[in-house]
Amino acid sequence: MSLSMADLFKRITSGVYVVGVAAGPQRNAFTAAWVMPVSFRPLMLALSINPKHSSFALLREGGVFSINVLRRDQLELAGRFGAPADTGKLSAVAWRTGKTGAPLLEDALARFECELAGECPTGDHVLALGRVVDGVLLQPDAEPLIYRETGDLDGASGLFPDGF
Amino acid sequence: MSLSMADLFKRITSGVYVVGVAAGPQRNAFTAAWVMPVSFRPLMLALSINPKHSSFALLREGGVFSINVLRRDQLELAGRFGAPADTGKLSAVAWRTGKTGAPLLEDALARFECELAGECPTGDHVLALGRVVDGVLLQPDAEPLIYRETGDLDGASGLFPDGF
Repeated sequence: MSLSMADLFKRITSGVYVVGVAAGPQRNAFTAAWVMPVSFRPLMLALSINPKHSSFALLREGGVFSINVLRRDQLELAGRFGAPADTGKLSAVAWRTGKTGAPLLEDALARFECELAGECPTGDHVLALGRVVDGVLLQPDAEPLIYRETGDLDGASGLFPDGF
Repeated sequence: MSLSMADLFKRITSGVYVVGVAAGPQRNAFTAAWVMPVSFRPLMLALSINPKHSSFALLREGGVFSINVLRRDQLELAGRFGAPADTGKLSAVAWRTGKTGAPLLEDALARFECELAGECPTGDHVLALGRVVDGVLLQPDAEPLIYRETGDLDGASGLFPDGF
């Protein structure tokens, strides 16, 4: 457990997202913070994902993902979609299927839909590179949830090494 | 010019950083927002960089980079290091050479030093993957500068396409 390393890395500011994946009739969604734009033309986003996560297999199989931007008041939702269980997370919220087939939260600050354009291994994660094919700013006046404000909701302090 | 696309993508929250690079006696530093952690073990950060930027050649040649986290009151500094000129940007601020050889700002919220561990092309940018070999939280009570709060300081609104 390394609170100080987690504290340090939280100074790399990021938002909090519910990422949706789908392959055929299967779909899932999970909370992530390691998301950023990586290209203007074409429009691309990168998502760093743990390849041991069952949603990674769905992402690869379906080749699509959605990024749903959470608001500051959606901390409880972030916790729910961060839970390890793979079933039923979407059943408790209002969602619909996007043009890519990925699930979209009805209630979010903004959202993006991506087609998987490539992968890049990075340490214990994999970068999923997404070509952004759609996006909408749903609530322009809302403030985004900031990852540092979630405390240790995701248990990341236990995942960092103690030193360099 | 696409203010609405820039507005949308700014909902992917990020901080603002001065990235330092060095190769032999040459060094440079530039402002970037597309930085995020990508692995716990080993500790890794990804930086999305325009390969046409002259600092990219230095980064590749030297194989190291630093990430200096700017505070909310360092907007003017962000603008200065965002200027296209390649010379003299470091001469106007207090900096020192880090253990990797990369330049470090003396006055920053936090900083990281990385060894270049890989690259991954993504559209019009390249992801530089850095193994984090050192880092320090210098000002734990300071608030980080948030990219969305910088307005159109970097002219990004002119770089986004108008549609998907």
